[in-house]
Amino acid sequence: MNREALMEATRSQMPERRWRHVLGVVSAAEELAARFGGNPEQVWLAALLHDYCKAWPADRMESIIREQNLPPELLDFDKELWHAHVGAWAVREELGIEDEEVLDAIRYHTSGREGMTLLDKLVCLADYMEPGRDFPGVNKIRELAQHSLEEALVAGFDSTISFLLEKGKTVFPLTVLARNDLIRTIRNQTKIS
Amino acid sequence: MNREALMEATRSQMPERRWRHVLGVVSAAEELAARFGGNPEQVWLAALLHDYCKAWPADRMESIIREQNLPPELLDFDKELWHAHVGAWAVREELGIEDEEVLDAIRYHTSGREGMTLLDKLVCLADYMEPGRDFPGVNKIRELAQHSLEEALVAGFDSTISFLLEKGKTVFPLTVLARNDLIRTIRNQTKIS
Repeated sequence: MNREALMEATRSQMPERRWRHVLGVVSAAEELAARFGGNPEQVWLAALLHDYCKAWPADRMESIIREQNLPPELLDFDKELWHAHVGAWAVREELGIEDEEVLDAIRYHTSGREGMTLLDKLVCLADYMEPGRDFPGVNKIRELAQHSLEEALVAGFDSTISFLLEKGKTVFPLTVLARNDLIRTIRNQTKIS
Repeated sequence: MNREALMEATRSQMPERRWRHVLGVVSAAEELAARFGGNPEQVWLAALLHDYCKAWPADRMESIIREQNLPPELLDFDKELWHAHVGAWAVREELGIEDEEVLDAIRYHTSGREGMTLLDKLVCLADYMEPGRDFPGVNKIRELAQHSLEEALVAGFDSTISFLLEKGKTVFPLTVLARNDLIRTIRNQTKIS
């Protein structure tokens, strides 16, 4: 599929508002990649496809998680987490995307994970800070993103975890592992420099 | 050992200020047990001994973690977490405490764990809310403890996690698992009642 066909296939999965968010993430990810590096083709593809099935009905995602043997513990957590794993499955199935790094960046764009790749970080951070986002702390994330992917991502995960604490919701353990790992990376960077 | 000897052995491990905290935890745990149940002897013992080695030097605790095969991942996290596991080892070794439920309540009083027992909950919550404690949110914890061990503990873990986020510190994953588990317990209680 060429770029235009991929864009059309993605746009057709979601309402206009979500599509504007996707375009915001593509532009934010490209801007971050210009600063921190990253393969432009992978960055574009992973950013474009990260929310591929975000607007799908929950019961459709639930069936796919069960039938395609995606991690069953997802079902114990907020539906917000489902579309990332289901999306990675769906873009392989429906669009023929085979690049495992791109699929991982889609799969972990909401939760993060230990050992995040550069591509994972770019997409996850772009999703937090694209121009359309407006939540407490977003400007701090944008500021930190001027000089550190890792510090900006920690601030992003902080905002997610704080939100979940405030709402009395469960916290996906992988997000805490991702944040711990980034904090250790930052500590090591500080030691070296 | 009789009660007096256990008290003296514990008191001798710590400065006066810490000992006053221990007595506060004993009285808070007994008050909670009067409300929510619990074996009075176990409650007294676990509360008395929960901070047995809190004032020990960090390098002594580190050696014990390494030499006694306590969970090595403790060393990747804040020293605050070490005294709980080292304490459970120490009171068996030095005071002959063999009651596994008491040892677990000591071992998990700082982090919590999945599937916390009634005794675990009483000691952990008493440690958050004893009369000498003063931190943002402590009064909310005391209020919730009037009617729900689990809701009060979630508020306690919320205060710990928020503090760690604010300080840019890593979060011990078991605390998040403990909090998730308590939230699910509360949800099930609400469904049943």
